[in-house]
Amino acid sequence: MRCVRCGEKAVALAAGRTAYCRQHYLEWFEEKVSRTIKKLGMFGTRDRILVAVSGGKDSLVLWHVLNRLGYSADGVFVHLKIPEYSDKSFEVTKRFAEKEGLRLLVVESSSPVRILARKSRRKTCSACGIVKRHELNRLAHEQGYSVLATGHNLDDETAVLLANVMKWDSQALARQSPVLPGSGKLVKRVKPLCFLTEKHSAQYALLAGIDYVQEECPFSRNASTTFYKKMLNALEQRFPGTKKNVYKRFLEFRKNIPQEEMVLKDCRECGYPTTGDICSFCRIVRGSLQPRC
Amino acid sequence: MRCVRCGEKAVALAAGRTAYCRQHYLEWFEEKVSRTIKKLGMFGTRDRILVAVSGGKDSLVLWHVLNRLGYSADGVFVHLKIPEYSDKSFEVTKRFAEKEGLRLLVVESSSPVRILARKSRRKTCSACGIVKRHELNRLAHEQGYSVLATGHNLDDETAVLLANVMKWDSQALARQSPVLPGSGKLVKRVKPLCFLTEKHSAQYALLAGIDYVQEECPFSRNASTTFYKKMLNALEQRFPGTKKNVYKRFLEFRKNIPQEEMVLKDCRECGYPTTGDICSFCRIVRGSLQPRC
Repeated sequence: MRCVRCGEKAVALAAGRTAYCRQHYLEWFEEKVSRTIKKLGMFGTRDRILVAVSGGKDSLVLWHVLNRLGYSADGVFVHLKIPEYSDKSFEVTKRFAEKEGLRLLVVESSSPVRILARKSRRKTCSACGIVKRHELNRLAHEQGYSVLATGHNLDDETAVLLANVMKWDSQALARQSPVLPGSGKLVKRVKPLCFLTEKHSAQYALLAGIDYVQEECPFSRNASTTFYKKMLNALEQRFPGTKKNVYKRFLEFRKNIPQEEMVLKDCRECGYPTTGDICSFCRIVRGSLQPRC
Repeated sequence: MRCVRCGEKAVALAAGRTAYCRQHYLEWFEEKVSRTIKKLGMFGTRDRILVAVSGGKDSLVLWHVLNRLGYSADGVFVHLKIPEYSDKSFEVTKRFAEKEGLRLLVVESSSPVRILARKSRRKTCSACGIVKRHELNRLAHEQGYSVLATGHNLDDETAVLLANVMKWDSQALARQSPVLPGSGKLVKRVKPLCFLTEKHSAQYALLAGIDYVQEECPFSRNASTTFYKKMLNALEQRFPGTKKNVYKRFLEFRKNIPQEEMVLKDCRECGYPTTGDICSFCRIVRGSLQPRC
């Protein structure tokens, strides 16, 4: 195949028969991210952006691209103390930050996330999500960042969408968005890679020479989202374009879902917004756990 | 396994570990259909019901059960002239009606459905659906039936749901219901098997000695719903109860989808309700076709 822009030998696919040479694939990817940021009003060049980096391809690629596009983006790594995996991921992330000359912040979980999950009788992925969301927001707020960006891609977003559809939880569906506005101590959250797939990021990482952790988190193997991703890949193979179409159409549909206003209070323990008296993070981390039977 | 009602040897599964002996499985199935009819206000014993029968397990089982439950239900077979398949299906249906002493009406498509599809540049399943929906409704209306019942089961309903979700077509989602009220020349349509699976019907047919056409329609092999059914079976295997839960939750969710009022006119050709000037049926069958490019 030939690059659709210059006719040189193509090395990466964007979609269907749209292939690019190295240089034009990198350009296409960056333009796509740039358009998404602008179209969805994610942030501008005056914003101070904090990118949640895990050492995986998506977050490192996002961090790299944002800085190439001229945005001011630092990184933050949440060390979750997952045996071997967290140390390795941290090493890769640190090396990347040093090589690119970028500022990396680090937050460390008080206990291994596996222990926190067991203590709070939650699945590991559920506890991990709570710790990450809370710590990322806290740090972004404390350090004065205006936006928190995550590397969630189209595969992640459609897998979560399918999981939400299986429950038909209207509020979860209404809240599923690539842009979650901030207010008070809640920092705005955005997903600039939401229209690009895992494969797109992997190709970008390869062509841009970004070294990343290739192993998946050991706890993700049995996660339901992993199962949904496989299903969506089968669908994509049978009906090409499914993921992009279903996600874009959903974003239109969700505008019509009546959204209940969420009344947020300050958590009695940490002061960060929560719907109850004590936020989920404090309940599992600071021992104020109410057993969930 | 033992029958959960009488402790005899079980021969059929309702769900998970809930198994029954022959007699109690048949009872369980009939009670389930009866509860669905009453709970969703489908019809009463005074209604004249027309059951759309194809010769497949679901529609024959439904026809059999409705009569066992004391409802007045005749059957109608739409002969679509699918080579071999239609004749075989008709023979099986006719034999069943004779054996059970039930009244069977027959409608014959003017041309083979494959030809109609080709002429109207539609997929065969799409043309077939239009012909069946129109002819069933016309006959039910002309013959004074108050309700048209179809054998759509939980597998059918969830596969259509998944297809609708892939498009996020809010009006298709809003209209997907096991009870579609009638008005004017549109006869009320109901799906009393909507909470039972294909497997449930197959077990019932086997235990009740109902002979049915086991082959699927030759055109359904490549149909997208067949693909969605396979996906949902994989989901069901991984997360038992998925189909029932997702369908029940969807029926709650859909109540909140704002439904646009559909303005129906009388078709200029046949007089039956349509959104345009000429209904889809007349366009493909009576040659008033506007090419769809």
